[in-house]
Amino acid sequence: MGKDKNIGLTVRKEENFSEWYTQLCSDRGAALADTRYGVKGCIVHRPWGFRILRSINELLEREVEADSHEPVLFPSVIPQENLEKEASHVDGFAPEVFWVTEGGGRQLEQRLALRPTGETAFYPMYSLWIQSYKDLPFKRYQSRITTFRYEMSTRPFLRGREFMFFETHNVFRSHDAAMAQIRKDMAMSRTVFWEKLAIPHVFFRRPSWDKFAGANDTYASDTLLPDGQRNQIGSTHDLGQRFARAFDVTFLDDDGAEKFGWQTCWGPGIWRIFAAVISIHGDDKGLRLPSILAPVQIAVIPIPTGRDDAQNEKVKSYSDEVTRACTSDVWRCSQDTSENSPGYKFNHWELMGVPLRIEVGSRETDRREVTIVPRTTGQKTVVSLDALDRAIPELLKRNDQELKEAAKAFFESATAIAETMEGLQEILETHCGFIRVPFCSITDQGKACADVLKDKARGTIVCGVPFENAESRPRDSLCIVCGKPSKELVYTARSY
Amino acid sequence: MGKDKNIGLTVRKEENFSEWYTQLCSDRGAALADTRYGVKGCIVHRPWGFRILRSINELLEREVEADSHEPVLFPSVIPQENLEKEASHVDGFAPEVFWVTEGGGRQLEQRLALRPTGETAFYPMYSLWIQSYKDLPFKRYQSRITTFRYEMSTRPFLRGREFMFFETHNVFRSHDAAMAQIRKDMAMSRTVFWEKLAIPHVFFRRPSWDKFAGANDTYASDTLLPDGQRNQIGSTHDLGQRFARAFDVTFLDDDGAEKFGWQTCWGPGIWRIFAAVISIHGDDKGLRLPSILAPVQIAVIPIPTGRDDAQNEKVKSYSDEVTRACTSDVWRCSQDTSENSPGYKFNHWELMGVPLRIEVGSRETDRREVTIVPRTTGQKTVVSLDALDRAIPELLKRNDQELKEAAKAFFESATAIAETMEGLQEILETHCGFIRVPFCSITDQGKACADVLKDKARGTIVCGVPFENAESRPRDSLCIVCGKPSKELVYTARSY
Repeated sequence: MGKDKNIGLTVRKEENFSEWYTQLCSDRGAALADTRYGVKGCIVHRPWGFRILRSINELLEREVEADSHEPVLFPSVIPQENLEKEASHVDGFAPEVFWVTEGGGRQLEQRLALRPTGETAFYPMYSLWIQSYKDLPFKRYQSRITTFRYEMSTRPFLRGREFMFFETHNVFRSHDAAMAQIRKDMAMSRTVFWEKLAIPHVFFRRPSWDKFAGANDTYASDTLLPDGQRNQIGSTHDLGQRFARAFDVTFLDDDGAEKFGWQTCWGPGIWRIFAAVISIHGDDKGLRLPSILAPVQIAVIPIPTGRDDAQNEKVKSYSDEVTRACTSDVWRCSQDTSENSPGYKFNHWELMGVPLRIEVGSRETDRREVTIVPRTTGQKTVVSLDALDRAIPELLKRNDQELKEAAKAFFESATAIAETMEGLQEILETHCGFIRVPFCSITDQGKACADVLKDKARGTIVCGVPFENAESRPRDSLCIVCGKPSKELVYTARSY
Repeated sequence: MGKDKNIGLTVRKEENFSEWYTQLCSDRGAALADTRYGVKGCIVHRPWGFRILRSINELLEREVEADSHEPVLFPSVIPQENLEKEASHVDGFAPEVFWVTEGGGRQLEQRLALRPTGETAFYPMYSLWIQSYKDLPFKRYQSRITTFRYEMSTRPFLRGREFMFFETHNVFRSHDAAMAQIRKDMAMSRTVFWEKLAIPHVFFRRPSWDKFAGANDTYASDTLLPDGQRNQIGSTHDLGQRFARAFDVTFLDDDGAEKFGWQTCWGPGIWRIFAAVISIHGDDKGLRLPSILAPVQIAVIPIPTGRDDAQNEKVKSYSDEVTRACTSDVWRCSQDTSENSPGYKFNHWELMGVPLRIEVGSRETDRREVTIVPRTTGQKTVVSLDALDRAIPELLKRNDQELKEAAKAFFESATAIAETMEGLQEILETHCGFIRVPFCSITDQGKACADVLKDKARGTIVCGVPFENAESRPRDSLCIVCGKPSKELVYTARSY
């Protein structure tokens, strides 16, 4: 590494969130991604970003495997005829598809789609694999793959033409069993997104015009980024029997009848989750990482003192000792022995979001102490070497707790209420986040009003109705767009 | 799972290796892959196969990360102009490339290659990332990705149009440092392939006509499948400065001069390693897995006795207890509580290659014992429940040792020696494996002789010269093809 490269953020998150985010992802930030690859929307995942994304995958893999999902890996390409078998699905995805048309120096007989999502790859095989009710529930997933969509505007970890993908695909004997899985998907989301990664979110039932193409119903987990825009970090779909009919996914039931399976699929948005971690927890100094995600949890920084070579040798040797004490099967620790100045190192590890910095200078060496500086508070704590193995887990836990509290405070303050379009427009002048409004309908009948809303209220869209704890609609409330009696209290927001 | 499906191999490995392999990969075998996806050469990796492949990846990831390689993830597509920058590289790969030509409903401005390998994706970025000698060595890798080549004949885990890929890409300050990495790649291969997976192999310096396209030299690890054909399970390449020149990968050295980097890349063949595990260790009853790879290491099978419900309840409860005793952070254990018959279960878990089967019947229950049946020997051992935690690690270790011994015995017997073409042809009638012969040259000058050899000796090709322990060439030996003085003693074999 060159010495004291030009690093550090030059804008404040609060002043220019968009530029702050771009800088933080780039070389002068935490070097998470490189957008200079030369193909629009296709980024290079650099080591720090990749390792965090890998950990997000691991957390989700552990959850779904504990819930009896078996891992599989499907081809990246889907024959055109399979992609087109479920009519509303292909209508939804066809405009975004990349096509492989040539191979081995000639035109292919059939165009192959780079998968935009996995349904039409999986379900023809499910038709072969599933025979009897004894094969159900049938749960499979694939992770650490990428998927491809021709998006117009792209942003690292928010929207790409190739992006990381995680998908479960399940078949059940009844609709009730399918809905029970959807509630499990929500529980797993809560465990990973909130409990482990401190990302607050709400599951909404999406309006019919914003459902997954081919689904009966879509339940999506939305969080808010600091600019108040909605970020969908996952969605689970009640597919009913529509794909089962299109792909002949049937089973012989115990009454001797051949029946169509009831299907669900869940896609936690690996990239979007990371975008939320970056955006919600980060500050003007850089990333702040939940300790479970941090590739390095503890950065040990030896601080030489002037030109006293003998003393510097002692500091170096004591710093090695501290590093060994912090390195275990449980903690990930790294000592920064680069040629950079201590000040540069402080900035660097703050940018990277490492939860704890340990400073080892002359004073610490002489007293056999360390100075610990948590990323969240920046408050120095001096601890004796002997007490380190008690202090570290406590400080890591506090790091995670502080990220949670800050995220929760923002999220809870981010819902406003409007009863009229004028009210909503006024709120939009200052408020960022969800705005709850009475709305005529989230079935297709409400689509026209949603279009008007988007037009009149700076791109505001209907997120849907909370899956649980939906507030009861006040008597006599009227849709803020058409004025007809409102069937729902919906949440609206601007959106990524 | 339906009851007592039609499983089991109907051919013997020795009689018809090819059909045995096909059956073992399929539904009636260990259900490792499904070839019915509908796109030639694109298989579905089923749970058992995928989990074994994932473990192979994990073993290699651990090795390369311990050797300071950082993980990255690059796009799957490569712009045509980048693919074409290094002339001999594109000549080698262009005929096999799949092209993405359409996206978002229109022709793309530039065709995108589905990566056939990563060099031309990585090195334009290396040109941006590497500035100074302080950035070197620069080591990156990506794993758990797939790559795409338009192959004419395809076979699960041996040759596919889309297949699993693992690649390291390194830059060094000198050719010596690059060669030291190549020796490290060989050491990591030995650790994973041989020490952990019991796959014997030799590293050969490839003849110039069989080098990686664009490399100065290719060193490839070859094993032999039971039919005596060579299976290349990895290759590491001395790229010299050719790609560095094509992609402008330079660094400022400490003498103030701008210099081209020296590059290497290593590709352990994930699929091919698995094919070797299947083929070399498997027998007529199914897979036999090294315990480190087995998704289930211990299968517990409760065996009910006739109609004595009370006793069957006791057996069931004791079987649960045994399963708990075998389940730990270290061992992977599964109890088979399906409705299938005990005989079916025995066959099933033998097919899957699980190292240890534990039978729990009435007698075992009454005596608080278990009957352990190792997959390799099939010899029953009765052990008391209390002694289980000592018996298991010992039996797993013995399983691995027995696989090693059998593999080694075959591999060591598989090299013959010929001095003339007639001698080689005669040996080929009965011998399967390597045949060492005097050969004029493994530089381009020998290419014509290699073509003649292939033609006259049933497709036999020149594997190369062993990287280490190359036997000294006997005085006066003559190339078995052209009769000119031989410069090398080369190994030949037929090949996958």
